[in-house]
Amino acid sequence: MKARILVSFKDSVLDPQGQAVRNALHTLGYEPIRDVRQGKVFDLELGGISRTEAERLLPEVAAKVLANVVIEKYTWQILED
Amino acid sequence: MKARILVSFKDSVLDPQGQAVRNALHTLGYEPIRDVRQGKVFDLELGGISRTEAERLLPEVAAKVLANVVIEKYTWQILED
Repeated sequence: MKARILVSFKDSVLDPQGQAVRNALHTLGYEPIRDVRQGKVFDLELGGISRTEAERLLPEVAAKVLANVVIEKYTWQILED
Repeated sequence: MKARILVSFKDSVLDPQGQAVRNALHTLGYEPIRDVRQGKVFDLELGGISRTEAERLLPEVAAKVLANVVIEKYTWQILED
């Protein structure tokens, strides 16, 4: 089973890395890109568990391990059974 | 307009960061997670261009700036008009 977890800063938290990317894009002439927020993507391969168990496991792993929930938010999805 | 670009190593390229995350998850008892590949997500806010122009801009920015196409692959999508 394939799943994906996205982790990025909460909207209220400054993202200096994203700002640096936006500034670099502007320098290169990509003015239509008004804002950039950078985050992390984790593509997971799961085995030996049911979809129901995966639906319990993924938010737990995201909240307890992959994201710092004080300053980061996460989303998860199952891509493929 | 909101868009998202995902950048990650090509499948043929070793991902030591993803392996470290997988090992950490196994140490914590999350054995069903067989493999982890880590990448970057860029959430972009676009302005002043049409959807058609965005569909031309996004793969260009991904290929020329955000990804190193020698070792990385990318996907892009428009999330919201």
